[in-house]
Amino acid sequence: MREKPVILASEEVARSRIFRVEQLQLRFSNGVERTYERLRGKAGGLGAVMIVAMTDAEHVVLVEEYCAGSEDYELSLPKGLIDPGEDALQAANRELQEEAGFAARSLEFITELSLSPGYMSQRISVVLARDLYPSRLPGDEPEQMRVETVSLRNLLGLLEHPQFTEGRALAAMYVVRDLLQQRGELTV
Amino acid sequence: MREKPVILASEEVARSRIFRVEQLQLRFSNGVERTYERLRGKAGGLGAVMIVAMTDAEHVVLVEEYCAGSEDYELSLPKGLIDPGEDALQAANRELQEEAGFAARSLEFITELSLSPGYMSQRISVVLARDLYPSRLPGDEPEQMRVETVSLRNLLGLLEHPQFTEGRALAAMYVVRDLLQQRGELTV
Repeated sequence: MREKPVILASEEVARSRIFRVEQLQLRFSNGVERTYERLRGKAGGLGAVMIVAMTDAEHVVLVEEYCAGSEDYELSLPKGLIDPGEDALQAANRELQEEAGFAARSLEFITELSLSPGYMSQRISVVLARDLYPSRLPGDEPEQMRVETVSLRNLLGLLEHPQFTEGRALAAMYVVRDLLQQRGELTV
Repeated sequence: MREKPVILASEEVARSRIFRVEQLQLRFSNGVERTYERLRGKAGGLGAVMIVAMTDAEHVVLVEEYCAGSEDYELSLPKGLIDPGEDALQAANRELQEEAGFAARSLEFITELSLSPGYMSQRISVVLARDLYPSRLPGDEPEQMRVETVSLRNLLGLLEHPQFTEGRALAAMYVVRDLLQQRGELTV
């Protein structure tokens, strides 16, 4: 791997309740200097989880939530920030109960994905939740989320759904499908 | 689908060279009111492309680029913003030449993915590029990117690579693999 650029200077150039924007002065190993910007989130380094929760050997829970970015209701995997004192699996089981009304007897860390490493440091842990049972915890959501399921056998079909768009949620489901197939726990 | 929240007010609360943060006052259909924030990018609505460029029937081009968010070199698919006057396929062929040194005789729009619809409106078009030939265009990159390839048959293996983390790039490759398998153009 090549030598990393030197960070000549960094400063906060904008801040809101949730976001901070940092400007970086970089010098690359070839001498070229550039100004980059990056976002810092409110998460404070504890990270986030995204849950692939299976209601049977084939189907995964999706939740419908209002998204301010797209100004529409979108379907995606349950997800949320890890709270102080929680590990990723505990956060996954809490978010699953808050957003979808299920708890899981089996929780397994699968992998970590980044959102947009060019602009953000955030990563999200993908957790596979199985052996579900009904259990609801009150969350901070403004309204209860509608829940539906999708078959891991038809992830391409999900792309036709006008309410499903999120790349990293799709990646998480493909990874779980691939892994379960490799283990002989799913035939596609 | 349920009734969307009413946007009672919106205002810009922070701005940098690249980012704008908007605050929204929302009233949900159940009467609950909340303050949300969302990011607006510099893209100005023309969108972005991410390219799955195949060097043969199985291998896809990855480029190594310095990422300010993670402060490290990361491997991902070639990608970039669509310039004025370009469509997604033209932008894909230009970015592929700038970042990887290849042009494509065959370009095909596959799908559109969102990054984080809760906080951003950005979407990225996934373009499949095939029948490649060497061709380089000067880009705005500070240094030439290192290029390598990955097999669509081993996407799970990519998760072991410490430099590969990006969820939507992984989703794009899984979608292409799934589609090519369905068409009988790839056996995994």
